[in-house]
Amino acid sequence: MSRPSYKHSEENQTTSNFKADVLVKDQFFDYIQKLQQTITSKLEQVDGKANFKEDVWERPEGGGGKSRVIENGTVFEKGGVNISAVHGALPESMQAYFGVTDAQFFACGLSLVLHPTNPMVPTVHANWRYFEMYDQDGKIVDQWFGGGQDLTPYYLFEADAKHFHQVCKTACDLHDGDFYKHYKEKCDHYFYNAHRNEGRGIGGLFFDYCKTTPKMGMQDWYNFVTEVGDSFLDAYVPIVEKRKDLSYTKAQRDWQEIRRGRYVEFNLVHDKGTLFGLKTNGRIESILMSLPPHVQWVYDHRPEPGSEEEKLLQVLKHPVAWV
Amino acid sequence: MSRPSYKHSEENQTTSNFKADVLVKDQFFDYIQKLQQTITSKLEQVDGKANFKEDVWERPEGGGGKSRVIENGTVFEKGGVNISAVHGALPESMQAYFGVTDAQFFACGLSLVLHPTNPMVPTVHANWRYFEMYDQDGKIVDQWFGGGQDLTPYYLFEADAKHFHQVCKTACDLHDGDFYKHYKEKCDHYFYNAHRNEGRGIGGLFFDYCKTTPKMGMQDWYNFVTEVGDSFLDAYVPIVEKRKDLSYTKAQRDWQEIRRGRYVEFNLVHDKGTLFGLKTNGRIESILMSLPPHVQWVYDHRPEPGSEEEKLLQVLKHPVAWV
Repeated sequence: MSRPSYKHSEENQTTSNFKADVLVKDQFFDYIQKLQQTITSKLEQVDGKANFKEDVWERPEGGGGKSRVIENGTVFEKGGVNISAVHGALPESMQAYFGVTDAQFFACGLSLVLHPTNPMVPTVHANWRYFEMYDQDGKIVDQWFGGGQDLTPYYLFEADAKHFHQVCKTACDLHDGDFYKHYKEKCDHYFYNAHRNEGRGIGGLFFDYCKTTPKMGMQDWYNFVTEVGDSFLDAYVPIVEKRKDLSYTKAQRDWQEIRRGRYVEFNLVHDKGTLFGLKTNGRIESILMSLPPHVQWVYDHRPEPGSEEEKLLQVLKHPVAWV
Repeated sequence: MSRPSYKHSEENQTTSNFKADVLVKDQFFDYIQKLQQTITSKLEQVDGKANFKEDVWERPEGGGGKSRVIENGTVFEKGGVNISAVHGALPESMQAYFGVTDAQFFACGLSLVLHPTNPMVPTVHANWRYFEMYDQDGKIVDQWFGGGQDLTPYYLFEADAKHFHQVCKTACDLHDGDFYKHYKEKCDHYFYNAHRNEGRGIGGLFFDYCKTTPKMGMQDWYNFVTEVGDSFLDAYVPIVEKRKDLSYTKAQRDWQEIRRGRYVEFNLVHDKGTLFGLKTNGRIESILMSLPPHVQWVYDHRPEPGSEEEKLLQVLKHPVAWV
């Protein structure tokens, strides 16, 4: 695969042993900055009314981020497209998790969640991230990419599910014929509300700890992850355009708000990224921008047998091979 | 203190060495059954419209419960008053927690949460519970009471906070002059949204692992815990009666729904009881009846300086000595 262009940073010239890897870091930070701009511009165009509001924040221990949040749009009731790049001493809780002591780290990524107003338009989540860990001499001792994108519909249009998964598969197939199947299964497994015995949504891709292998160097992983990042708008926007003007009833909106409750349950009970952020002094408002604007919890709610709502539940309980 | 009347159970006649303790178990299960009836009857009378719906459930591994849920009342938008009594092999996750292997256990308790419609009426939570652990011969090796009651207002009426805490203090003072101060502080400490740097509400009482001491036998703890249980309606109902007919604006209702979001965050991120239930195959609908009916998350919401909403936040950030 061809290597994309990248910018040099003076700081990185010194660690010549790890030049290629340091360059991946720079390339990727550059990439997510541009991708944030591309995605938010397109989404504003799709919405036609609301604009993203930008908050730039600093992390006292090193680094910071740029959050862009949209609220009360025509199409998007609430959503965020955030980037961050943080570094410094690896927090104690992560030291234990990775089995290291006194390490330094760098992490950057883009995270997005969009909650449309219309229950016929699915919620979407995506994330692409890169992580490096250093020893006392500043030498990289570990590094990996992670991320993915997944869809959470309230009403199931099979054509939409197939389209989303097909775009995911096409992006994967350009890099490895086994990736789609593997990362699709990981996605179904990860975004799972175990306490409800049901998936959060209808999946997509989820990958983590993408490290150097005999087949894939870090530059290859960069190419793969950015391929998926580049596919996001193609995967999601056509679905939004197709469904955003469909009419819906109060009962359908209630169902959406009840299902959004399951989204909250997943993010607050199971999602490792959210919990890690909450427990290690992350920027709370950027982490919790993923929570939906209006949510309901109804005691022991069960859809009518044979209804569209129950059809969705069946698919959430038994993931489908869409493509 | 005088010993309350109790019923005998044949099963318990055999473990004569621990007769007094076994009787505490029977007494307490009897107590929470009656208390559930007393509380739900009174709350139905206060509401005047909605009735509690009862669900009886069984736990495959032993025991079960009786959930009573009220929805869409005049006063109570959603609430539950649940009892359960479960027993069997101590689940693996609890074995690790208590540092034991292969133990048997018995646990029973009453849990309640009430979410009123009117933002001028506070949400309330209470719980009273008893736990026993046995060795292979069925001998009790550990036993304790726990519980408490706490108030979560959306608008702060100081008279209400003082009333609630005064009832808590009076119940405590009948048993030990130090209890109120101690358990009030524990409550402020426990019901704390660390990721927001604020309390969930304005507190009340929280106690756990109430075990035999030179001053307090299990019977004394029973008397204390049931004293608090008996005080619940006196602590809460006068506040409801005083505030339930106050008028409120759409903006005040929005504020209530945003604050309910914090309630959800506490219960799903921090509350040990909820997380334990979710991760050990508890009855999900009974555990999550604590979640409010309509909830909002607004990005980076901050009340106006000097407003009533901001006044509440100040108190949540800096707990007050109400009595």
